[in-house]
Amino acid sequence: MNQFGRQFRLSIFGESHGPAVGITVDGLPAGLALLPGDFDCDLDRRKGGQQKGTTPRQEEDRPHFMSGLFNDRTTGAPLTMIFPNSNTRSADYEKIRAVPRPGHADLVATQKFGGFEDYRGGGHFSGRLTVCLVAAGVIAKKLLANLRIEARITEVGGEPDVDTGLQRAIAAKDSVGGIVECRVHGLPPGLGEPFFDSVESLLAQAVFSIPAIRGIEFGTGFAAARMLGSEHNDAILNGSGQTKTNHAGGVVGGITNGNELVFRVAVKPTSSTPKEQETWNRETGNVAAFSVKGRHDLCIALRVPPVLEAVTALVLADLYLQQGLLPRILS
Amino acid sequence: MNQFGRQFRLSIFGESHGPAVGITVDGLPAGLALLPGDFDCDLDRRKGGQQKGTTPRQEEDRPHFMSGLFNDRTTGAPLTMIFPNSNTRSADYEKIRAVPRPGHADLVATQKFGGFEDYRGGGHFSGRLTVCLVAAGVIAKKLLANLRIEARITEVGGEPDVDTGLQRAIAAKDSVGGIVECRVHGLPPGLGEPFFDSVESLLAQAVFSIPAIRGIEFGTGFAAARMLGSEHNDAILNGSGQTKTNHAGGVVGGITNGNELVFRVAVKPTSSTPKEQETWNRETGNVAAFSVKGRHDLCIALRVPPVLEAVTALVLADLYLQQGLLPRILS
Amino acid sequence: MNQFGRQFRLSIFGESHGPAVGITVDGLPAGLALLPGDFDCDLDRRKGGQQKGTTPRQEEDRPHFMSGLFNDRTTGAPLTMIFPNSNTRSADYEKIRAVPRPGHADLVATQKFGGFEDYRGGGHFSGRLTVCLVAAGVIAKKLLANLRIEARITEVGGEPDVDTGLQRAIAAKDSVGGIVECRVHGLPPGLGEPFFDSVESLLAQAVFSIPAIRGIEFGTGFAAARMLGSEHNDAILNGSGQTKTNHAGGVVGGITNGNELVFRVAVKPTSSTPKEQETWNRETGNVAAFSVKGRHDLCIALRVPPVLEAVTALVLADLYLQQGLLPRILS
Amino acid sequence: MNQFGRQFRLSIFGESHGPAVGITVDGLPAGLALLPGDFDCDLDRRKGGQQKGTTPRQEEDRPHFMSGLFNDRTTGAPLTMIFPNSNTRSADYEKIRAVPRPGHADLVATQKFGGFEDYRGGGHFSGRLTVCLVAAGVIAKKLLANLRIEARITEVGGEPDVDTGLQRAIAAKDSVGGIVECRVHGLPPGLGEPFFDSVESLLAQAVFSIPAIRGIEFGTGFAAARMLGSEHNDAILNGSGQTKTNHAGGVVGGITNGNELVFRVAVKPTSSTPKEQETWNRETGNVAAFSVKGRHDLCIALRVPPVLEAVTALVLADLYLQQGLLPRILS
Repeated sequence: MNQFGRQFRLSIFGESHGPAVGITVDGLPAGLALLPGDFDCDLDRRKGGQQKGTTPRQEEDRPHFMSGLFNDRTTGAPLTMIFPNSNTRSADYEKIRAVPRPGHADLVATQKFGGFEDYRGGGHFSGRLTVCLVAAGVIAKKLLANLRIEARITEVGGEPDVDTGLQRAIAAKDSVGGIVECRVHGLPPGLGEPFFDSVESLLAQAVFSIPAIRGIEFGTGFAAARMLGSEHNDAILNGSGQTKTNHAGGVVGGITNGNELVFRVAVKPTSSTPKEQETWNRETGNVAAFSVKGRHDLCIALRVPPVLEAVTALVLADLYLQQGLLPRILS
Repeated sequence: MNQFGRQFRLSIFGESHGPAVGITVDGLPAGLALLPGDFDCDLDRRKGGQQKGTTPRQEEDRPHFMSGLFNDRTTGAPLTMIFPNSNTRSADYEKIRAVPRPGHADLVATQKFGGFEDYRGGGHFSGRLTVCLVAAGVIAKKLLANLRIEARITEVGGEPDVDTGLQRAIAAKDSVGGIVECRVHGLPPGLGEPFFDSVESLLAQAVFSIPAIRGIEFGTGFAAARMLGSEHNDAILNGSGQTKTNHAGGVVGGITNGNELVFRVAVKPTSSTPKEQETWNRETGNVAAFSVKGRHDLCIALRVPPVLEAVTALVLADLYLQQGLLPRILS
Repeated sequence: MNQFGRQFRLSIFGESHGPAVGITVDGLPAGLALLPGDFDCDLDRRKGGQQKGTTPRQEEDRPHFMSGLFNDRTTGAPLTMIFPNSNTRSADYEKIRAVPRPGHADLVATQKFGGFEDYRGGGHFSGRLTVCLVAAGVIAKKLLANLRIEARITEVGGEPDVDTGLQRAIAAKDSVGGIVECRVHGLPPGLGEPFFDSVESLLAQAVFSIPAIRGIEFGTGFAAARMLGSEHNDAILNGSGQTKTNHAGGVVGGITNGNELVFRVAVKPTSSTPKEQETWNRETGNVAAFSVKGRHDLCIALRVPPVLEAVTALVLADLYLQQGLLPRILS
Repeated sequence: MNQFGRQFRLSIFGESHGPAVGITVDGLPAGLALLPGDFDCDLDRRKGGQQKGTTPRQEEDRPHFMSGLFNDRTTGAPLTMIFPNSNTRSADYEKIRAVPRPGHADLVATQKFGGFEDYRGGGHFSGRLTVCLVAAGVIAKKLLANLRIEARITEVGGEPDVDTGLQRAIAAKDSVGGIVECRVHGLPPGLGEPFFDSVESLLAQAVFSIPAIRGIEFGTGFAAARMLGSEHNDAILNGSGQTKTNHAGGVVGGITNGNELVFRVAVKPTSSTPKEQETWNRETGNVAAFSVKGRHDLCIALRVPPVLEAVTALVLADLYLQQGLLPRILS
C-alpha cells in the first residue's frame, strides 16, 4: 500500500513519465493558510540543477491543488496536490528496456508486476515522487510551526567536506553516497508509543520510503554498540527530562524525552553512475557492459535533506494529532 | 497503538510485573500444527541465564494458549498466548521509584501517562514483552518453513569475538552493546511495496519495537555512503535477478530481489549497568549518584538474535499473505 | 481481522468452549478508575437467565485483567480482559457435528477454515464473545460519562409488548426476533467524517459484528423511503443545530448534528429454536429432520440492548479521541 | 478519514465546485485491461438527466487517469482518476450561504470545519463524489468478472411501480425516497470474518458512505424480527451450503454461505425539494421560509443503483484479495 499515517494520512501516486505524480493528505486540520509561495523554498531545495553534483533537469514542480483548499486555507477535507510531468524523454527509456539497470528497481518491478509496470524512468519507483513528499511536508511543517526541523549533509563520499567528496566523484567519473543528519528542536516529551509505533519505528518506516536510503540510526546509533553502558546513558538533570548528554537522540523507550531528536541516514551512491557497468541483457541473455546515458546526480544524497525533513514533519504531525496536541480547527 | 501488520496482525499487551504479558496473532491460516515443544528452542535462546553475560532470572516462559488452537492446530481465529509473570520482585522497584533510571523509559512513561503507568520493572516498556514477539515469531517461522532466517551476534563491545567483548565489560564492571546481523535465505522476488510498505520500511518499523535497538542498516548499509556507485551496484547475472555481489542486501526499490536478505542492527549497552551513575532524584530534586541493584544482562545484545529473527518472520509472513503466497487453509 | 477502531482499538479473541474469551483495548487514556463493580450492571443485563425468554446458563462472567490496570486505574498501556470459560458441555456439540445447524455458522466455518475451526458451541462465532464487547463498552461508557446511551427492546415477535411477543413464541414452541432501539443523548456536533468514516458507517460496521443482527436504520430509517422531502427534512431552529423534528436521527452528511442520535436494529429469531427443523446431514448426505437440544434463548433480542450500547460507546469513544475531545491523561 | 479497504484501498477526494473530484485505488492487480469505454455504461446510469425524476445537469464525467495505467492496463501502482468539475454555478451557492439547508450537511460542515469548508454545492459532502465510487466500482467489477452484481429500484415514494411513485412526487411538488435492492450472484462461501469484518459490517460501512442512505438490511432484514425461528432458518440442502430458502441473504455468521447475496437500502427523499421549507437564517438569526432554487432530483434513489453496485464490488474485491482469490498479476 502506498499510504502512511493514522490521523494524518498520506496516499501517494504517480509515475515518472505518466501524466502526473501526486499525493493526498487526509486528516488536515481546517483553516491552515497555504499560499503557493509556501512551497517554493523546499521544492527548490529538492530540485536538481541548483547546486554542483545534481542533475540539471528543470521542472516547474509547483503543486496543482485538486481539492482541500478554499480561499487559500485548508478545508478539513482531503487535500490532493498533483505535479504534472513534463520535460520527460520517454524514448530514452524505451531503448534501454532490454537492460535492467543495476541498483534500480527495473527488474524487481517486472518480477512484481509481470511486465505491466510503467518502466519509463523508474515509473512509480522514481525519485520524482519525492516531490510529493516534500510538498506534503511543507504543510506538515506549517502545522508544526513551533518546531525547528533541520536536515543537512554531514558526509559526501566519505568526506565531511561536501566539495571534497564531490571532487572525489568527479575525479573517479563515478557517483558517490553520503550521510544526512536530521535534528528536531522543540518536541514535547511523550510522543510515540512503546513497540510498533515507537518514534524510531515510525520515522524509520517513513524514511525508508525515500529511495536510496540504506540505513538509519538514532542518537549515537551504531557507535553505541561500541560504548560502555555508563558512557552511553544520558544522566537526567531535572523533572522535565533534560539530559546531560544526548546519546539517545531524544527518544527513550520509543517515546520522545523532550531533548533534541537526532538521527542520521545513509544514502547509497546514485545508481546511475557515468561509469561503465556490467549487467544482464534481457534480449541477448548475456551479461555485458553498458553505460547509463542522460543527466543524473553525482550524489543523490545532496537532494535528500528537504525530503528527510518532510517525512520527519509528516510523522510528527501524525503523532501530534494522535496525542490531541493540535486543534482540528485553526484560526 | 500496540499493533502491527495488515493481513497478519499482532496485538501485544502486558506489563513486566502485572499478571501476564501476551500477544494476539490474527490472520493465521487454519490448520497449522503447533505443539508446545515448537516454542522451546527460540524461547530458550531468548531466556536469560543460558549463557555468560545474561541475567540468571529463570522463568517458565511457555505460552498458555487462550484461543485459536484446537486439537494442536490453528483454527483460523485469533490466537492469543499469555505468559503469566512470576519470579518478580516488585518491592525492588517500589523503593527506587524516586530515581528514574537513565536509559530506561521510567521518566518518559511518567511524562506520557501522568504517573498512572505500571512502573514496576519497566512495566509495559519492559524487555520482558519480547517473549511474546519470540513466541509469535515461532508461529511465523513455521508458516514460512521454506525460509532460513538466522540472526547472530557479529560484535560485542566493539569486538568480533563475543568472549573478548564480554571480558571487556567484566573488566570495566560495566555493560556493553553489540551488533546483530540477520540473514534470510530463500525469499522470492517481489515482496514489499514502493514507499511506505517497502521491505526496509516494514522491517525497520518492527525492529525498532525491540527495546535497545539504535540503528538498522541493509546490505552494505552505512558503509555504502562511502562507496562509489560502480562499486556499490550489484551486477545482475540472469533473469531471476541473481546478482554478482549483494551490497543491496536483497532489497531494491523496497522490493525483495530474490537474493539473500541481509541487515544489521545496533544494540545499545544494557542501560542497567553495575557501574555507579548520576541522575535526578524525584524526591530530593537533586542530581545524585545511584546504583542499579539486581540481576541484569551485561550485554543485552546477546539476547536479541531470536527476537530479531522473530520480528523478521512476522513481517515476512504478512508480506507472504498480502501477496497471496500462503494458503488460508493448510493441510 | 478481529479488530476495530483507529485511536481506540479493539482486538477480540476466544472460542465458546476454549480456555477463555477476551478482548484487548488499546488507546485508552491513562488514569481512568475501573473497579470490578463497574462491570456488574451491564454484564448482568447481558447474562442469560435473568429474565423470561433467556437461557438459564449461569456464568461468573467477570473480567480477569491481564494488563493495563494498576492500582485500579488504567495505565495507558493496552488493557486485556479475559473471561475464562466454564459451565460448558462440550460433549453436547461433539455428537451433533454431523448436522450443521441452520442459521448458525457451523457450515460456513467449515468452508472457511477447512474443518480446523473449533466447532464446539459456535466456537469463535459464538454469542459468548459479546461478553467481551460489553465489558469493553463499560470502559468506553466511563470515558464518555457525559453521554446517556440507552438501548431498549421496542418489539418482540412483532409485538411492541415484550410479554405478548414472548407468549407468541411460547405458544408456537418456537423462537422469535425483535427490534432494539438505541438513543444517545449529549453528543456534540461534528463527530464523524464524510464517506467511509461517517457515523452511520462506523456504527453499522460495529453493530453488524453482533451476532443475529439483520438490519440497521437511522432516524426514520426505512420509513423515510416512503416520505416526501418536505416531511422528512428537519427544520433547523438555531445556530447550535437544534432541529424541530429528528427524522435524521442526529446524523447529517455522516456527521453528528448535536441532536439525539437514534437508530434501530433488527434481530433475527434465535436460530436454535425448540421446533424440529430439516437440514443436511454431513454423515448420511441426506436432508433430514433434527432438533436442537439444550438451553437456548427464545428471543436473543432480549440480550442485545447492553451489547448495542457497548458497541455504540466503543465507536463514540474512538470518534472523541480522533477529534481530540478526550484528554490522554485523566485526573 | 476518507479511505476504505485493507488490500484494495480507496482514497477519495474533491469538492463539488473545486477543480476536480477524484479517487485513488491502491492494491490493484497488474495487467487489468481498462479502456475508456468500460466506464460509459455505469457512469451514464449514474448521470442525471437520463431518466424522468433526475436532474438534467450534464457533465462529461469521464475519468482522467493520472497514474496506474500504462498501455491501457493497470500497472499495479496506485491508480488515480480525476473528474474535473465544470458546468457549476458557484454563484447560486454564495447567495444562499446564510441559509443552511435542512437535510444537507451545510451546518454540520460549518460546525466541524469552523467555516473553512468549501460550502459551494455541498463541497466535499456532495453527491457529486459518487462519480468516483462508480468509476472505481467499474474497475472492481472487471476484477470480479465472474460475479453478477445487480442493483435495482424496488420502491419509489412507497410504490413498487417507479412511475407511479414519481407521479406522486410530481403531484405533491415534492421529492420522494425509495428502496434499492442489490443482489450478487456467484460468490464463493467463506468471504468475510466474524465480528468487525463481517460481510455485513464491511458492506454497511461502505454503503453508508453513499449520501442519503438511511438504512440497510440483509436477506429478510427487518421483517426477520417478526418471524419465528423455524420460519426464518434456511434449511441446508447439501455440502456446498445451498439452502432451501434465503432469508439470510447469503451471509451467516458474517461469512458468505455461497447463496445469493441480497440486501436492500433505504434512500431518503432528496433534501432539495421544490417545496417551500422553514429553516434558521444565519444572518437574521430567525427561522423563516425559503425555497431551494436550481435543478435537483425528484428522487435521488433513482441514481443509487450504480453507486450501490460499485461499493458492493469494491468491498468484494477487497475480500477476494484478502482471501488470496485474485492473482496479483492478471494475464
